[in-house]
Amino acid sequence: MSQEHESNSTSAKPHVIIIGGGFAGLSCALALKHAPVNVTLIDRRNFHLFQPLLYQVATGGLSPANIATPLRKIVSRHKNIRVLLGEVASIDTAEKRIGLNGFHLDYDYLVVATGSTHHYFGNDSWEAHAPGLKTIEDATRIRHQVLKAFELAEREIDPDIVKHFLTFAIVGAGPTGVELAGAISEIARHTLQHEFRTIQPEDARIVLLEHADRVLPPYPDDLSEDARRMLSELGVEVRTGVKVTGITAEQVHVETADGSEILPARTVLWAAGVAGSPLGAKLLGGNSEALAHGGRVRVDEYLALPDHPEVFVVGDLAFALDEKDQPLPGVAPVAAQQGEYVARSIRASQRGEKPKPFRYFDAGMASTIGRGKAVALIFGRPLRGGVAWLAWLFIHLMKLVSFENRVLVFMQWAWNYTTRNRSARLITGADDDTDET
Amino acid sequence: MSQEHESNSTSAKPHVIIIGGGFAGLSCALALKHAPVNVTLIDRRNFHLFQPLLYQVATGGLSPANIATPLRKIVSRHKNIRVLLGEVASIDTAEKRIGLNGFHLDYDYLVVATGSTHHYFGNDSWEAHAPGLKTIEDATRIRHQVLKAFELAEREIDPDIVKHFLTFAIVGAGPTGVELAGAISEIARHTLQHEFRTIQPEDARIVLLEHADRVLPPYPDDLSEDARRMLSELGVEVRTGVKVTGITAEQVHVETADGSEILPARTVLWAAGVAGSPLGAKLLGGNSEALAHGGRVRVDEYLALPDHPEVFVVGDLAFALDEKDQPLPGVAPVAAQQGEYVARSIRASQRGEKPKPFRYFDAGMASTIGRGKAVALIFGRPLRGGVAWLAWLFIHLMKLVSFENRVLVFMQWAWNYTTRNRSARLITGADDDTDET
Repeated sequence: MSQEHESNSTSAKPHVIIIGGGFAGLSCALALKHAPVNVTLIDRRNFHLFQPLLYQVATGGLSPANIATPLRKIVSRHKNIRVLLGEVASIDTAEKRIGLNGFHLDYDYLVVATGSTHHYFGNDSWEAHAPGLKTIEDATRIRHQVLKAFELAEREIDPDIVKHFLTFAIVGAGPTGVELAGAISEIARHTLQHEFRTIQPEDARIVLLEHADRVLPPYPDDLSEDARRMLSELGVEVRTGVKVTGITAEQVHVETADGSEILPARTVLWAAGVAGSPLGAKLLGGNSEALAHGGRVRVDEYLALPDHPEVFVVGDLAFALDEKDQPLPGVAPVAAQQGEYVARSIRASQRGEKPKPFRYFDAGMASTIGRGKAVALIFGRPLRGGVAWLAWLFIHLMKLVSFENRVLVFMQWAWNYTTRNRSARLITGADDDTDET
Repeated sequence: MSQEHESNSTSAKPHVIIIGGGFAGLSCALALKHAPVNVTLIDRRNFHLFQPLLYQVATGGLSPANIATPLRKIVSRHKNIRVLLGEVASIDTAEKRIGLNGFHLDYDYLVVATGSTHHYFGNDSWEAHAPGLKTIEDATRIRHQVLKAFELAEREIDPDIVKHFLTFAIVGAGPTGVELAGAISEIARHTLQHEFRTIQPEDARIVLLEHADRVLPPYPDDLSEDARRMLSELGVEVRTGVKVTGITAEQVHVETADGSEILPARTVLWAAGVAGSPLGAKLLGGNSEALAHGGRVRVDEYLALPDHPEVFVVGDLAFALDEKDQPLPGVAPVAAQQGEYVARSIRASQRGEKPKPFRYFDAGMASTIGRGKAVALIFGRPLRGGVAWLAWLFIHLMKLVSFENRVLVFMQWAWNYTTRNRSARLITGADDDTDET
């Protein structure tokens, strides 16, 4: 591809480059649709992914397209926003320029919203055996692995190995780990009922491992306790206060208060650690030492780099503090509000005004565990069971970007609820199963 | 995996092994659900794929799960049918035994229904540049490639290369080629409208190359002529009577009546040749010389191997002749009827009766070209335009295996028809695009 330096000099309007089309980047772009700026939204993918429902793709309840909307479609009517597909290779904050696919692009304002990725606490070899859940490919890979485990168990003779195929370990009992554990338990106990002739899928053992002393640590103690009870009702073995010290293709090594232990499991899923995307270090001139906890980029109260007020970091990649000097969590509402805030800031600075510092408005959170089982904290008010589950359903449906997906997801949920089936149960993609002969 | 010889001697019922869960194999299995036999249905995949709609996945109109139904789900209530996931490695017709995943399974009746695969007429190097459309992975690969071409064009500077990215060549003007060409043209002219800032997607050139002198050769002349006109209305360049002599990453070489020609095109799709699955040769003891035209297995009027009346070959893999000694086409209705016929034959032979020879009941065929554009031949009666299109819609909806998918597909079609959007437009999977920097 030819090298080109695309200058913005022909246009009088300032150029805003947004890197990342997740909740933070997309909400920023959309909030600039009527602003006197030109926006370039760059993503490696051609779609916005609704990550809170990714676990439902991983467990066969929804199709990838149900939770993904083409970015071009979302912004098609806003002529001041263009979308570029590509991966940003370099950021030069001194020259106000980024490098992308052999091009350079100059910016007046830069918004970095590339999110986070799995983090195995320095044990990169675990990744091969314990996939995390961040992308569509991760989700179809997990779907493949979970469903394949039942298939391999069905054709296995050795009863011990059958047990190992039917043991699913989930590392990390935050919202994603809890959702995965609950969904896999429902698959084993209900979806796959009557479908096998040799094994009993309901014999599957689902073990949720958590280092903290309770599940769903962001919630108050009593909701964590409720969640734990609901998980047990679904047949999930919850083991808190345990530390994972090793993961191989066939085992998880854990350290408990009583010593160390080996858990034989052919399927291990990673829902424990995330870290800021690698673009964070590039933004700081390659100085990864300057990154905050979890590889995130420290920003000031305006979500900007302290020495570059025109460079913003929003969403999971940002290390921003709330009014109590606590770091804001890496969740979708924080990301969306940060993106909108930066759009308002840019408009204010064009008018020569100084924006107020960012404040997160916390409306609450909701986590689902299974059919009719959830916990939620809405405006500080704890909800549990069916009410929390309906709240969760409603919030997630309404936040889906396209109306079509809202209708399709609602229909499939209604269907899945009624029949306990999960129709998107496809084993697709390359098979990395070495047992295959 | 341990070696095991699983004998059927404990059961008094005859054992029917069916290899392949497509139209032929699945219809055979289901027709045996009340028969006094034990059925083992073996497939490499855990789902039945509704191949006639695969091109809609390849062009972003439907999600893979919409046209796939888990095999276990379909047969879950029929306790005499078990499903095994795996690839058959060997067939020993003398010992009546197959090898699978390190096991051996004995059969009393064997039904081979493994279908067909792409065939590049000995030019295997073409496959890398011109994917065919047989599997879910093929479909998402084509979807990736087609959508990516527009993205690469959008960020390209050289106007000639932009043109090459926006040229789509489809080799073969049978039903699949015609459907792909029509759908890509609609994507370019309608779906992607307003979505790009640099290129005009409607400038895309879609070229349909066919060796015969008309499109849709299985149809009567006048319907072929209608189809050609509808393709032209959609902006597809139809070139019949041309022979493809080479395919590279950037060009298609063609021979016409006037000489040879090079067509620069960065996207080439293969809809020309298919051949019987490799299991056909294994069935004949590795003697691929004995295969009929297109690598298919010659069967007698009972769809059995002449010297093995207990071994049946059905569907695309079978080379069966109709009453006029013409080979039956490799289409879904033939496959389904053959599968059911073999099930009836097996039941008859259990009663000591000799079945009548197989006769294909030809109800007709329908091929879609685009929105409101189709041709059909229903009970020998030609249909064209909107009527044919509605017939096509109705037939395909009704043939989908699960009611849920019927509802979901219908809704998405209604949506796509109204909005001209295609929501399953995801660029996913590994990127084999070497232009990426």
